[in-house]
Amino acid sequence: MDIATLIGLIVGSLLVLGAILLGGDLGAYINAPSVMIVIGGATCATLASYPLARFLKLPTIVKKTIFAKPVETLALIRQIVELAEVARRDGILALEGMVEDMGDTFLIGGIQMAVDGTDPEIIQVIMETELENVLERHEAGKGMLDALGRYAPAFGMIGTLIGLVAMLSNMDDPSKIGAGMAAALLTTLYGALLANIMFLPMADKLALRSSEEALSRTIIIQGVMAIQSGDNPRAVESKLMTFLPPGQRPAGEEEAA
Amino acid sequence: MDIATLIGLIVGSLLVLGAILLGGDLGAYINAPSVMIVIGGATCATLASYPLARFLKLPTIVKKTIFAKPVETLALIRQIVELAEVARRDGILALEGMVEDMGDTFLIGGIQMAVDGTDPEIIQVIMETELENVLERHEAGKGMLDALGRYAPAFGMIGTLIGLVAMLSNMDDPSKIGAGMAAALLTTLYGALLANIMFLPMADKLALRSSEEALSRTIIIQGVMAIQSGDNPRAVESKLMTFLPPGQRPAGEEEAA
Amino acid sequence: MDIATLIGLIVGSLLVLGAILLGGDLGAYINAPSVMIVIGGATCATLASYPLARFLKLPTIVKKTIFAKPVETLALIRQIVELAEVARRDGILALEGMVEDMGDTFLIGGIQMAVDGTDPEIIQVIMETELENVLERHEAGKGMLDALGRYAPAFGMIGTLIGLVAMLSNMDDPSKIGAGMAAALLTTLYGALLANIMFLPMADKLALRSSEEALSRTIIIQGVMAIQSGDNPRAVESKLMTFLPPGQRPAGEEEAA
Amino acid sequence: MDIATLIGLIVGSLLVLGAILLGGDLGAYINAPSVMIVIGGATCATLASYPLARFLKLPTIVKKTIFAKPVETLALIRQIVELAEVARRDGILALEGMVEDMGDTFLIGGIQMAVDGTDPEIIQVIMETELENVLERHEAGKGMLDALGRYAPAFGMIGTLIGLVAMLSNMDDPSKIGAGMAAALLTTLYGALLANIMFLPMADKLALRSSEEALSRTIIIQGVMAIQSGDNPRAVESKLMTFLPPGQRPAGEEEAA
Amino acid sequence: MDIATLIGLIVGSLLVLGAILLGGDLGAYINAPSVMIVIGGATCATLASYPLARFLKLPTIVKKTIFAKPVETLALIRQIVELAEVARRDGILALEGMVEDMGDTFLIGGIQMAVDGTDPEIIQVIMETELENVLERHEAGKGMLDALGRYAPAFGMIGTLIGLVAMLSNMDDPSKIGAGMAAALLTTLYGALLANIMFLPMADKLALRSSEEALSRTIIIQGVMAIQSGDNPRAVESKLMTFLPPGQRPAGEEEAA
Repeated sequence: MDIATLIGLIVGSLLVLGAILLGGDLGAYINAPSVMIVIGGATCATLASYPLARFLKLPTIVKKTIFAKPVETLALIRQIVELAEVARRDGILALEGMVEDMGDTFLIGGIQMAVDGTDPEIIQVIMETELENVLERHEAGKGMLDALGRYAPAFGMIGTLIGLVAMLSNMDDPSKIGAGMAAALLTTLYGALLANIMFLPMADKLALRSSEEALSRTIIIQGVMAIQSGDNPRAVESKLMTFLPPGQRPAGEEEAA
Repeated sequence: MDIATLIGLIVGSLLVLGAILLGGDLGAYINAPSVMIVIGGATCATLASYPLARFLKLPTIVKKTIFAKPVETLALIRQIVELAEVARRDGILALEGMVEDMGDTFLIGGIQMAVDGTDPEIIQVIMETELENVLERHEAGKGMLDALGRYAPAFGMIGTLIGLVAMLSNMDDPSKIGAGMAAALLTTLYGALLANIMFLPMADKLALRSSEEALSRTIIIQGVMAIQSGDNPRAVESKLMTFLPPGQRPAGEEEAA
Repeated sequence: MDIATLIGLIVGSLLVLGAILLGGDLGAYINAPSVMIVIGGATCATLASYPLARFLKLPTIVKKTIFAKPVETLALIRQIVELAEVARRDGILALEGMVEDMGDTFLIGGIQMAVDGTDPEIIQVIMETELENVLERHEAGKGMLDALGRYAPAFGMIGTLIGLVAMLSNMDDPSKIGAGMAAALLTTLYGALLANIMFLPMADKLALRSSEEALSRTIIIQGVMAIQSGDNPRAVESKLMTFLPPGQRPAGEEEAA
Repeated sequence: MDIATLIGLIVGSLLVLGAILLGGDLGAYINAPSVMIVIGGATCATLASYPLARFLKLPTIVKKTIFAKPVETLALIRQIVELAEVARRDGILALEGMVEDMGDTFLIGGIQMAVDGTDPEIIQVIMETELENVLERHEAGKGMLDALGRYAPAFGMIGTLIGLVAMLSNMDDPSKIGAGMAAALLTTLYGALLANIMFLPMADKLALRSSEEALSRTIIIQGVMAIQSGDNPRAVESKLMTFLPPGQRPAGEEEAA
Repeated sequence: MDIATLIGLIVGSLLVLGAILLGGDLGAYINAPSVMIVIGGATCATLASYPLARFLKLPTIVKKTIFAKPVETLALIRQIVELAEVARRDGILALEGMVEDMGDTFLIGGIQMAVDGTDPEIIQVIMETELENVLERHEAGKGMLDALGRYAPAFGMIGTLIGLVAMLSNMDDPSKIGAGMAAALLTTLYGALLANIMFLPMADKLALRSSEEALSRTIIIQGVMAIQSGDNPRAVESKLMTFLPPGQRPAGEEEAA
């Protein structure tokens, strides 16, 4: 689990809460219809932009983005090198028994196809198509969060306009003007908060997570192809190590390269 | 019919209506000249940006976008594989009798050309040109919806400025200032609503629908070319299945691949 | 002449005029210095952005954009096929007598070079360079209209700021505040109107016109090259027909292809 | 010297001055601290964005952009064709005596290398590297003007906020509110004027000048390479003429091509 | 150390301070909760957008950007040519003793691999991967500064909305309205200042620094490859000199080229 998004979200919300409590009482900032129009409006606009099936997957994608544990690239490379050693020593069929302990379903699928003797080109096409599908799903997820981040302030402004018109067409009691204007501004505040504390940072995080996952899956694809063609485990290692930033490479490997 | 766009549109409108009714009476929000200037202005600006013939096709494209039933890619692949089996078993001329039951006019056109013995290269050029034409028409449709989504808020602001100038140059009766300002703000509200509830989400939906249609037509082109060259129906199937996300592939096919 | 741009421009202006007349009297909306600063300022900023020679061609380009009759692609293809038939039957020199009736100067230039026996590669380079030049001129024209569309609202805001400062630094008579503010807002209104009714739609129209002209000139280039190399008129026709959307192709041709 | 930028700048400034004088007295619009914060702030932000050495070259680049005389492409081509004739007739060494009269230092450098017998590939690499360097310097110059055009309105807003806070926290004398607000708005006005009359148009002009210079230097590079390889002067001419728009080509040449 | 960023930052801040002191007293502009919400909010939103590990590296990257001494390309080329001379004269192993005096760790790493007899292709892959990693880190650093530059004004607006709602819902004492509004505007001022004086200029500077470092590392890679293949030091020099703008090349070299 990447703690940064949660910290950012929670501390950001607490800061805003603190600023509100310092300036007045919380009650003036809570207004159910304002919440309804901002969240509801942004959700409806995003729903209208995407097919229903894709829209319903948004919570899953978001949850995975926040709670998925970051890929440990070095451990993944070590695991693949180990598999390459077993395949070289005992033949590729020896990997069949190890499949269950591998953890990563994408790696399991690739090794399974190699063990089954599937044609290498077909393995590569299938694995790359799946990688593209994952990236495309992430892209759609980011697109939905971006849309929410655009529509939330827009419906915040719409809510404020509705409130202003209500207040202005009914100004008999001047003492209520302030309160009416305050209520009208609340939706703009909600829209700005939702976009800047939640939707936009999460869209950026999803894009980063997506490029991390693309990296690890590219390593897996290259590893499976190398294992299947029976490459020397040392050669596999030095090839995969170039995907790591130098600082993360173990000292010994670099010299050996 | 993809229900999401309709739900988003209707629920979004109801939410806004609810917010208005909670805050005051609906009458203050209805103003015919304001509707006229926002919708009329945005339509005129878009009309001036596009050739008349293309502009007049906008309603058709929009209707198709909302009501067209989503492509069922798996069923399409199964249908093509079936055609490939018939062509292999009974010769390509046997497909002639099946043309009427195919449903998709693009598929029918392709199969018809194959049955007529048209040169494969010419079939491919004609089908790809037609695909590009469809995408280009969708692109133009999205462009018009985007233009409406840009011009609606612009004419909303223009209407508000006209109203403000009218109110400010005639401030003899201070009690009417509120009502004048409320009326002036209505056009801005209309422009923001039209853009964010209708035009922009529909432009995004059209773009997604366009990429879905591109996918299904690419599958059809590849399928027709494979049928014409008499490929093995199993090979056709495993080739076309890579266009599907893994989760949607039937269990048996994947292993067989 | 493409009627859409004129309709959009005129109806859009009438709508705004109607909205003004409904809300008050026209006099409050007419102010010579405001017109001067918005139109003058936007023009000066655009003039400063472009070389004088190019800036002076703007009216010609705009006029051509609105009044040029749209290219009839099918008629053009038929004309080229006819030329190809004559060239095949009577030799390419027979085209010399037909040059005057061709109408399109780009087509005339190409055929003339073919008749003169110019080297095919040189014909192609010259015609493509000329096509690029036309597109580049259109691009510059669109750039100037876009610049006008950006600078008009900017100088509208500048005019409003000048008016506000004048009003605010001279508030002895509170009854004049409204009129002063109304006058100040006029420039913002002018800037928004000019940009959204005229400059931005015309920039978009120019871009579309440009892509239409690119299509017809590409057809002419391919046609001239085919005529010069003495291709079969049927082959020329089926090749050029792929540039047309299927709906516009004549029924017979498609089958013959 | 391209007169358009100067005309645009001066007439634009006069228009704004006229609008100010019509509306009130000039004194209300002059405020030294406002000038200081807008110009100073935008300059500091741009200075912080670029290395010192590059920032200091900005005035030179701007001066050259306004006062540099436009390239006369046709004259340049004629000059190169003349050099090609001399080189063909009297040998390439005969060009040595003509170097001083050539005017363009880029052309001189290229011819000098050709006369010195430098390897053609090295000449091309050196000339193209120099062309890229010039374009990169122009790009950086445009970047700085764009930055000034972005930061001037931003510091205009910052100045207005500072003025508003000063006015609002000191409202004992209501009669001074108007004057305070007028003074606060001045920085926004300055920022908008600087950006839209000076920085943004000059950035666009620099981009155009840069593409013009790229064209003339590309012609020179092609010309020097052709002279060195001893090409036929007629061939050199017809090759270089394709860089000219047809309208600018002399009548005779086109037919000869 | 590149002095421009520091000068820009400090003088810019002093200008703003001066403008504040001219207009009123500094006290009205200092407000701890406002600082908290703008800086805290922008930091939290950026933190939520990036993995924790990357976020924590931001201060290091920023410090390096400001204080890193600019690369002296000419000195670097001279140093590489010297190494090429030693390698040519005394063999590549003679470079081993010079490694410690080289200064640049990237150059040291490359020479060390060449001395160790590593395969040239592997050296190139490793050095280019490392270059890409550095650029990618700079890109992420710029991304974070851009995010801060976007979120600071956004949280400035959020703070102002919170302040306005507090003031408007509590307008019993009209004499406090001015002070409340002044306090509310402070966060917008802080957000604009932070973005335009610090974050955005530093993001641009980091992008420039990154392209400078890419240039010097590209020179080192080419140099190491040339040294390893035993190229003539003169050839190495004339090849690397093309990376320098002509004005910076020493007079003698250019003629020798």
